[in-house]
Amino acid sequence: MRSFVLTSHCVDQPGIVAAVSTTIFHMGGDITDLQQFGDTITGNYFNRIVFKGPSSLQAEAARAALAPVMERFGMSWNLRDQNHRSKVLLLVSRFDHCLVDLLYRWRSGELRMDVVGIVSNYPRETYSNLMLGDLPFWYLPITKETKAEQEKQLRGVIEETGADLVVLARYMQILSDELAADLYGRCINIHHSFLPGFKGAKPYHQAFDRGVKLIGATAHYVTGDLDEGPIIEQDVERVTHLDTPEDLVRKGRDIERRVLARAVRYHLDGRVLLNGNKTVVFPE
Amino acid sequence: MRSFVLTSHCVDQPGIVAAVSTTIFHMGGDITDLQQFGDTITGNYFNRIVFKGPSSLQAEAARAALAPVMERFGMSWNLRDQNHRSKVLLLVSRFDHCLVDLLYRWRSGELRMDVVGIVSNYPRETYSNLMLGDLPFWYLPITKETKAEQEKQLRGVIEETGADLVVLARYMQILSDELAADLYGRCINIHHSFLPGFKGAKPYHQAFDRGVKLIGATAHYVTGDLDEGPIIEQDVERVTHLDTPEDLVRKGRDIERRVLARAVRYHLDGRVLLNGNKTVVFPE
Amino acid sequence: MRSFVLTSHCVDQPGIVAAVSTTIFHMGGDITDLQQFGDTITGNYFNRIVFKGPSSLQAEAARAALAPVMERFGMSWNLRDQNHRSKVLLLVSRFDHCLVDLLYRWRSGELRMDVVGIVSNYPRETYSNLMLGDLPFWYLPITKETKAEQEKQLRGVIEETGADLVVLARYMQILSDELAADLYGRCINIHHSFLPGFKGAKPYHQAFDRGVKLIGATAHYVTGDLDEGPIIEQDVERVTHLDTPEDLVRKGRDIERRVLARAVRYHLDGRVLLNGNKTVVFPE
Amino acid sequence: MRSFVLTSHCVDQPGIVAAVSTTIFHMGGDITDLQQFGDTITGNYFNRIVFKGPSSLQAEAARAALAPVMERFGMSWNLRDQNHRSKVLLLVSRFDHCLVDLLYRWRSGELRMDVVGIVSNYPRETYSNLMLGDLPFWYLPITKETKAEQEKQLRGVIEETGADLVVLARYMQILSDELAADLYGRCINIHHSFLPGFKGAKPYHQAFDRGVKLIGATAHYVTGDLDEGPIIEQDVERVTHLDTPEDLVRKGRDIERRVLARAVRYHLDGRVLLNGNKTVVFPE
Repeated sequence: MRSFVLTSHCVDQPGIVAAVSTTIFHMGGDITDLQQFGDTITGNYFNRIVFKGPSSLQAEAARAALAPVMERFGMSWNLRDQNHRSKVLLLVSRFDHCLVDLLYRWRSGELRMDVVGIVSNYPRETYSNLMLGDLPFWYLPITKETKAEQEKQLRGVIEETGADLVVLARYMQILSDELAADLYGRCINIHHSFLPGFKGAKPYHQAFDRGVKLIGATAHYVTGDLDEGPIIEQDVERVTHLDTPEDLVRKGRDIERRVLARAVRYHLDGRVLLNGNKTVVFPE
Repeated sequence: MRSFVLTSHCVDQPGIVAAVSTTIFHMGGDITDLQQFGDTITGNYFNRIVFKGPSSLQAEAARAALAPVMERFGMSWNLRDQNHRSKVLLLVSRFDHCLVDLLYRWRSGELRMDVVGIVSNYPRETYSNLMLGDLPFWYLPITKETKAEQEKQLRGVIEETGADLVVLARYMQILSDELAADLYGRCINIHHSFLPGFKGAKPYHQAFDRGVKLIGATAHYVTGDLDEGPIIEQDVERVTHLDTPEDLVRKGRDIERRVLARAVRYHLDGRVLLNGNKTVVFPE
Repeated sequence: MRSFVLTSHCVDQPGIVAAVSTTIFHMGGDITDLQQFGDTITGNYFNRIVFKGPSSLQAEAARAALAPVMERFGMSWNLRDQNHRSKVLLLVSRFDHCLVDLLYRWRSGELRMDVVGIVSNYPRETYSNLMLGDLPFWYLPITKETKAEQEKQLRGVIEETGADLVVLARYMQILSDELAADLYGRCINIHHSFLPGFKGAKPYHQAFDRGVKLIGATAHYVTGDLDEGPIIEQDVERVTHLDTPEDLVRKGRDIERRVLARAVRYHLDGRVLLNGNKTVVFPE
Repeated sequence: MRSFVLTSHCVDQPGIVAAVSTTIFHMGGDITDLQQFGDTITGNYFNRIVFKGPSSLQAEAARAALAPVMERFGMSWNLRDQNHRSKVLLLVSRFDHCLVDLLYRWRSGELRMDVVGIVSNYPRETYSNLMLGDLPFWYLPITKETKAEQEKQLRGVIEETGADLVVLARYMQILSDELAADLYGRCINIHHSFLPGFKGAKPYHQAFDRGVKLIGATAHYVTGDLDEGPIIEQDVERVTHLDTPEDLVRKGRDIERRVLARAVRYHLDGRVLLNGNKTVVFPE
């Protein structure tokens, strides 16, 4: 037996589940998970279906069988083998805690991905305490003057590696509107505040100055509009008057890494669907 | 338009979603929510489907249309109007915080229920600070000697009121095995510990003695086996060495009332299905 | 034995604890709790000391004994009997969940306060489901035209009742700058968002539109600068794409009432000290 | 200026703070943090004081100055330079997530410790994905027959390295009563359940079978009585019916590593004092 993950969305209308599930049944499939969401405000419909099929069933054949019903409902859809591993490119800067965390989860099998490389504006030696092994590494320094050129190189790396997903693991650089647009829905950033609070630079210092009692982190898809992209996951932790800005930074590292790891995992498992400027995240 | 909630469970097998959703489609229904769970260990299948139908569609007709497909899969199932309000009997003792909380949520429309009455082993005056209004109230005191007789009276109240659900809102009395068995799946208790830790009496004092750093509460269906029934909901709160047993009791009141309220709400909305000694709780 | 709570703050300097604790020892006192905080950024020092004294020790005598040392360090300070109950005035509007919660906690002895009355811009009948008993109630309706006049009446109530603390328990009205200034440090508001996110009106709808994954509430001291006062307590709860704005409002009620209750409790117990636009909250 | 951390405990009695703080003042010290706890049930008193002294002040001199007052109150006490780094030995088995986490936090400067080595019952190659660098590593395999002999070797390593603290970072082996007793108060274990629930083997599978809605982890000092030692820190995470035992194991890894890291950090900072079978943990 092999399993497939089918995600789709369209304008909500009666009969979708009946049609899709009947099609799956007829191809010998057995639905093992089905989640759906009808947004009563926008009138959009979203679902995620996992089904097992006979070992003879290939993804291509499943797609062919589903195509007519998908067309009938005007669906945007995606079907893939559940074992499919996305190609992921990690972008990082001086702070390496998210990088370390993602690499560990990748190696321990928590994340269904192949890391195709690391891009940093710091040289490889910066990470000499990490076991990068033979992971491709691109050192792409950046200055105001070279920003456009550097991004061109970055585009080259994304194309060359065939990255399905680009993760800004505390990359600290702002992508151009064009690149953000081109990567829409496949580029995840971790912002070190509980958005929409404390956008922009030095959020922990902003949080300290405001005297909040909880700090947080936010993983979101990147858009041209800084810190305004669709939110995938957030979490917080309690702080007190005793915490200095440095304590917030330290506590924040823990929040950031778990929030980013969850968002990447949800994305890789096909649980995140875009709904305008928001996300539908089907729980695991 | 009117909405129906269909819950069902059976042995897992291919084609269930296709058959059920097609039947709903043919009766003019539109599925607005569908959640399912296939327990790969026990081989059991559970689902909860909410669908809208034309205003002419009556629950009886919907049931008749669904019966054949339900029979085919050997389903245990239930269909009801989403606006159906369950009849709920509240059992309480000296501590009234859960009672107060449930009454408030009921009056503010959070809970889809009709409170058919209150049973207590303390007299009505005990609750003179609460606005019981004209809610039926049974004062059923209990002693070792009168326990059997009192329970007989309690059974009478349950029958007389036609209660669908009995909530032990800190009732502090143990039901007999027979009554527990007869109410199985429709009697919810709140235990003031994070089960399976600290079963039995004075759990906060046990927690204090053990020096735990979090205390909790557990809402579960009542079974003859004390504090061992299927868990519906749990939550915890942080405590420190500064907390006396009295502080734990105070903090615990907050946990108890929100855990019990959630469990009752999930039950009333048909989100809780029994799976052996465990529960399936479809998220809202 | 009787207990006293001493809170004080001044410019940080060596020898404070030694001098104060020695003074307390000499008056026959025994320190049962001592917490302090030196803000290394502003150079301010804060402490809260609880001490038991012989039953013959009166607050006046304790104050007289402490005055010289307090003067020496240039302290702003307050000493009171631990059993002192503050006079609290509750301001409320149409939504009564925070009012209900505070009244329940007051009656069950969780809050060291005397409720001296309720002010509402809705008539008393609005709360007919609550057991207000013989609590003084002022119906002070408000319109754009009568705002100044209404506030004058409100001031009259505050003076007449001798309220030590004014709690805006979802009062939904903005105090004038003058009143906010006059009540500075003794007027607590609950804002139904995780500040600084979603200031202003309809924060749950703002949160829904932004697609956040956690919603929150904030209790803060009122200042003329709306939603910018020193934060006392915050908390959050998880939400998903399934939650409508109405669900956020419902879930928010639970967060609001527990955040406000904690803030009021901390204030009543003398745990909250103002530190510029922030608070020091000594944990219980 | 240099800072010192003084921790002490004795039978509670009046005048402790006055005497100790006055002594510190007289040696030119300035108290920057002071926390205390009087256990009203056992009558024990605990405190932790951080004070700055002139750069000329040595720990030895500070100890000499404090000794008389400490003796007067019958104190057990400890004074050390705040920059003191404890020697820590990490014991690990097949699962390396806690090891990875502690090493990362150590290297990033979060933990005031020197890792003096790693002991494992698996060979060094097991951890080839980790950057162990030139950390001393002892491969001490263990079988029923060699248990006593292996523990003797382990004792040798502890002595040789001069380890102040031994961390069982998922070591999965039970220390003998003798070794547990000898290491009392300086050996921390992480148990992968929310104690006292699910003691013993395979706690995640026990949790799955019981159908709990939250799983947790517990860091505690090791005693001869398995899983019964004084608890330092606990935390939990929400799980649902969808989670398989493998999911619980995965989610649990995150809880374990953050609970253990916090416990180790609190211990290293002198925040944890033993109070019978419980702990006093002064918050940071």
